[in-house]
Amino acid sequence: MSGSAGAPEVIGEFERIRRFFAPLAGPGGLGLLDDAALVRCPAGQRLVMTADAMVAGVHFRAEDPPELIAKKLLRVNLSDLAAMGARPLYYLLTTALSVALGAEWVESFARGLGEDQRFYGVHLLGGDSVSTTGPATLSLTAIGEVAAGAEIRRSGARPGDDVWVSGTIGDAYLGLRVLRDGAFAGLGPAFADALVTRYQRPEPRTRLGPRLSGIAHAMIDVSDGLLADLGHICETSGCAATVALPEIPFSPAALAILAEEWDNPVSLMTGGDDYELLFCAPPSARGIIAEVAASLALQVARIGQVEAGAGVRLVDAAGREVAIETTGYRHF
Amino acid sequence: MSGSAGAPEVIGEFERIRRFFAPLAGPGGLGLLDDAALVRCPAGQRLVMTADAMVAGVHFRAEDPPELIAKKLLRVNLSDLAAMGARPLYYLLTTALSVALGAEWVESFARGLGEDQRFYGVHLLGGDSVSTTGPATLSLTAIGEVAAGAEIRRSGARPGDDVWVSGTIGDAYLGLRVLRDGAFAGLGPAFADALVTRYQRPEPRTRLGPRLSGIAHAMIDVSDGLLADLGHICETSGCAATVALPEIPFSPAALAILAEEWDNPVSLMTGGDDYELLFCAPPSARGIIAEVAASLALQVARIGQVEAGAGVRLVDAAGREVAIETTGYRHF
Repeated sequence: MSGSAGAPEVIGEFERIRRFFAPLAGPGGLGLLDDAALVRCPAGQRLVMTADAMVAGVHFRAEDPPELIAKKLLRVNLSDLAAMGARPLYYLLTTALSVALGAEWVESFARGLGEDQRFYGVHLLGGDSVSTTGPATLSLTAIGEVAAGAEIRRSGARPGDDVWVSGTIGDAYLGLRVLRDGAFAGLGPAFADALVTRYQRPEPRTRLGPRLSGIAHAMIDVSDGLLADLGHICETSGCAATVALPEIPFSPAALAILAEEWDNPVSLMTGGDDYELLFCAPPSARGIIAEVAASLALQVARIGQVEAGAGVRLVDAAGREVAIETTGYRHF
Repeated sequence: MSGSAGAPEVIGEFERIRRFFAPLAGPGGLGLLDDAALVRCPAGQRLVMTADAMVAGVHFRAEDPPELIAKKLLRVNLSDLAAMGARPLYYLLTTALSVALGAEWVESFARGLGEDQRFYGVHLLGGDSVSTTGPATLSLTAIGEVAAGAEIRRSGARPGDDVWVSGTIGDAYLGLRVLRDGAFAGLGPAFADALVTRYQRPEPRTRLGPRLSGIAHAMIDVSDGLLADLGHICETSGCAATVALPEIPFSPAALAILAEEWDNPVSLMTGGDDYELLFCAPPSARGIIAEVAASLALQVARIGQVEAGAGVRLVDAAGREVAIETTGYRHF
């Protein structure tokens, strides 16, 4: 069925799967020709499973390029696997799309997935492709593996641990403000582009996560916001944490915005969508953590301390507490 | 946060998970307190994975009772596992819900899941709970197990095989017509209720499926429509099939409608949503299939034959071909 001129090409459900998604299937996916996929269980390993959903208008903008939407959907899930110390293997995908999004959109979406599959070494196992009258709604279940006992939970932080974070914080939040609000008009295009890229194309730390097995006591990925996610670790570990504002790693673009006082650092620590790894480890591990990070050419920063008690405190260079109004994004 | 009088109670995202979904988590779900779930791989087994999505207004009516929506979502996925001969173990769930659906709705939805978890012996592993401005959109990934080599694919049908189907066909389609169109007003409430129940509360054949390992050459569950799903088996197996209309099992309620000529049998075979098992097996297996069915107190009917060639033919009592306009539901 070809669309008329100007209208998107409409393709059937089975054709859609055969043409765009079946080529993404790995061996266990059975060519997406069966009711379900078959997965061999690696000896001595545990499978690690996570699922995240994204909705147009909430998690991405409907007009974003489909290949970037696909990559973000996959990457936010791979970030959850990395936060457990797991290596990614497979994923299942369900898409609820408007009929108005024709073949070209789906093709771009699948192309984005294909590129990321090759980059991260994962394969599609199966899923569902349905129609909706509402915003595009995507759900992805990612499956990884970790040696039995090598998983890194949120609940293992102990008083005395250092708090670490990979990469830089706040760029995705600032990138969204550039995209959505046209904010920071005086910033210059190179910095603005760098921030937008960080929002649209997160880089899950899939290589760092598994390397921290046996080193980190607790780990989480920064999705809700640095302070909120550290709060999740503290809550499940039954402890408190103090974060030193001067130690938070900001990118050159973020530093330029802070220097102009166009935004404040606390917003960058509560904006979320960073998909960096936030972890707690004993001081004795400082050397090995620096080595691991250097071997991956990845920046890690020691930003605070785990303490007895409850809750997360932010302090300035003089040790004075900085007020936090909200710690992160909530859906309801 | 309590809602004002008359408005639904709005509860936070984390509170929503803690109150309603965490109690559904099995051991591997880690209390839904981590980034991902941990699954032990059973020795000698394969894990079987499938995902289906449902959208309000497409797969269910927005006004349907939340507990029935939850059960249908879980059951259609368990049906896919059964069609591979797998036993169900776990599931992950993502929900995209309007803020207008308050705590009461979510509580009912979770109660429905809880009831079905106990009935089918499955546990929640994880997922995501996000907001949407559109129709409620639900996605569920189900995970089961099957002994290595015991899986039943769609691709194993051979000429000479019998075609079998469990239960009765067309009730869910007729039930939807009762619900949505107020059809069959003269039918009587007991029959009407029975049909609506079949639409709202499918019964996946989770006990029959695994029992057919080593017996059935090919299997699928009837979701798109009997004829369409038999077409899927024929396509992947590289063969044809002929179905005898007089052998199709109809319920007393469906027979009453057909007797009044309020609908025609072909519509019942293309309406879908039956979630019965459709399978192909050699004539030598007739005895054991009858025994298995009897031991489960489940009806199975031998409705046709697999042949060389391609496509699905429907014939009447005299062997004359019956015209089929469309074989089943498609989303696009």
